[in-house]
Amino acid sequence: MTDAGNARVQSAEPLWQAKPVGIVGMGLIGGSLGLDLMAQGAQVRALVHRPATAERARQRQLATDVSTDPGVLAGCGLVVLALPLDRLLDPAQELVAALPPEAVITDVGSVKAPVLERWHGRVPRFVASHPMAGTAEAGVEAGVAGLFAGRPWVATPTATTDPEALAEVRHLAVAVGAHWLTCDARSHDHAVALISHLPVLVGAALLQAAHGEAADAGGALPALVRALASSGFADTTRVGGGNPELGSLMARTNRAALLTALATYRTSLEELEAQLQAGQWEALEGALAEAHQLRPEFL
Amino acid sequence: MTDAGNARVQSAEPLWQAKPVGIVGMGLIGGSLGLDLMAQGAQVRALVHRPATAERARQRQLATDVSTDPGVLAGCGLVVLALPLDRLLDPAQELVAALPPEAVITDVGSVKAPVLERWHGRVPRFVASHPMAGTAEAGVEAGVAGLFAGRPWVATPTATTDPEALAEVRHLAVAVGAHWLTCDARSHDHAVALISHLPVLVGAALLQAAHGEAADAGGALPALVRALASSGFADTTRVGGGNPELGSLMARTNRAALLTALATYRTSLEELEAQLQAGQWEALEGALAEAHQLRPEFL
Repeated sequence: MTDAGNARVQSAEPLWQAKPVGIVGMGLIGGSLGLDLMAQGAQVRALVHRPATAERARQRQLATDVSTDPGVLAGCGLVVLALPLDRLLDPAQELVAALPPEAVITDVGSVKAPVLERWHGRVPRFVASHPMAGTAEAGVEAGVAGLFAGRPWVATPTATTDPEALAEVRHLAVAVGAHWLTCDARSHDHAVALISHLPVLVGAALLQAAHGEAADAGGALPALVRALASSGFADTTRVGGGNPELGSLMARTNRAALLTALATYRTSLEELEAQLQAGQWEALEGALAEAHQLRPEFL
Repeated sequence: MTDAGNARVQSAEPLWQAKPVGIVGMGLIGGSLGLDLMAQGAQVRALVHRPATAERARQRQLATDVSTDPGVLAGCGLVVLALPLDRLLDPAQELVAALPPEAVITDVGSVKAPVLERWHGRVPRFVASHPMAGTAEAGVEAGVAGLFAGRPWVATPTATTDPEALAEVRHLAVAVGAHWLTCDARSHDHAVALISHLPVLVGAALLQAAHGEAADAGGALPALVRALASSGFADTTRVGGGNPELGSLMARTNRAALLTALATYRTSLEELEAQLQAGQWEALEGALAEAHQLRPEFL
């Protein structure tokens, strides 16, 4: 993918240091990125939608300049679209128009194929990426320093992605301490369906089952399940009880991969159920032993 | 259930203070209970199976006396059977023979109906109970001070449980800072199937699905799912990737309730799957919003 005949000379200094970095959106990802880049001496220009958000982002010093005017992005060498997936897939025309034509543009969306479909080829130096860092928080109050440290930052280049643009996004990710990875968009979306989106449905169904069956039984049971639920139940349902808009959005944008993952999951669960039904205790213990051995590989 | 004609006079001092407390087993629960009771000045006499365990329990000062000889229980006013469920349901004859006939006997088993079936009526002052405290650790190294503080300690008395014996177990639970609750054994087993045993199978199936589907896909995917799995995946699978012997034992002893819970769970999950399949995004978001609202009730 390297091009020896490329006339552009790679600056000795990465783009995030040489020119202002634009960040569109000052939520958890945008705000955290602003804090980390400012701490490293970068000029950060933030574009937000609402005046109240701009005011709060300024108070929190999440960026050097914060504006509701897309013109704030002029002169940025690299722009990070730190927007929710739905706004990323249906961006405001004035935003698209304000992106500097020479700038490297990247996003932070958690599903990559639909993002590429929308953006690749429409802006010249687009790089699809996904910093995999999160907390339970959202909005302009959510940004924290150090969010990306040690976390994966996955880029999903295509055959025609500008390799220099890709390298600039890598410099940015490495600068905030992230662990840089690349893969194709389809593999990314398949992987996150299994390890990120499926757990949401698995945990949500557990909350509904525990509540619903106890409510149907009545008597002491609704209060009892609530009194006896321990840290194990809390952990198993943490992402399942998370932000419903976000969960629904991920399901919608990654529908096919998530349906496949659900079918696989159902098969695994039905096998455990069959072993329990048939009293095949050695087989059940073997399956639980396999799960016990697998888990450290995912940590 | 109180008996005004009862000739025995309730001691002003709870039994755990008035006489030595016997603890059978020095694992997580037995060792932790020994530490907490010793810290409150109780005499604790521990019975263990293996000489090496006895030696280590003495080194860790988990009890006043530790022995492999069941005779150590002589003179105890209250004996806690802190044994795994399988040994509790099939106890050694020499253990049963060594239990002082006047002593209050309780257990710590996580399923109550089979424990009652085995023990109720066979020793005169038996109280089935379940301190719901745990860590990922097991064995003689696992015991820690303060394990029971703020955690539920559930007793499941029957119509013929000695009310004084029940009160003595309550004194013991309260002394170590636990939150005392009583309910019937069937309700207990129903509740723990939903909030404790079902999460084990739900999480184990998730580990198997993520591993199995990625292995089938091949290429970069097996490494990718492991690299991208975040704290959300780790939390959702924590109890599912736990001790397989313990998981299998709980499933075996609480089989009927767990099968019912699994059927309810499958229905909840299939409803989410149908919404995803049909693209009913408002219904899916509504279901996730319900889960989001339910979760704090279980914390």
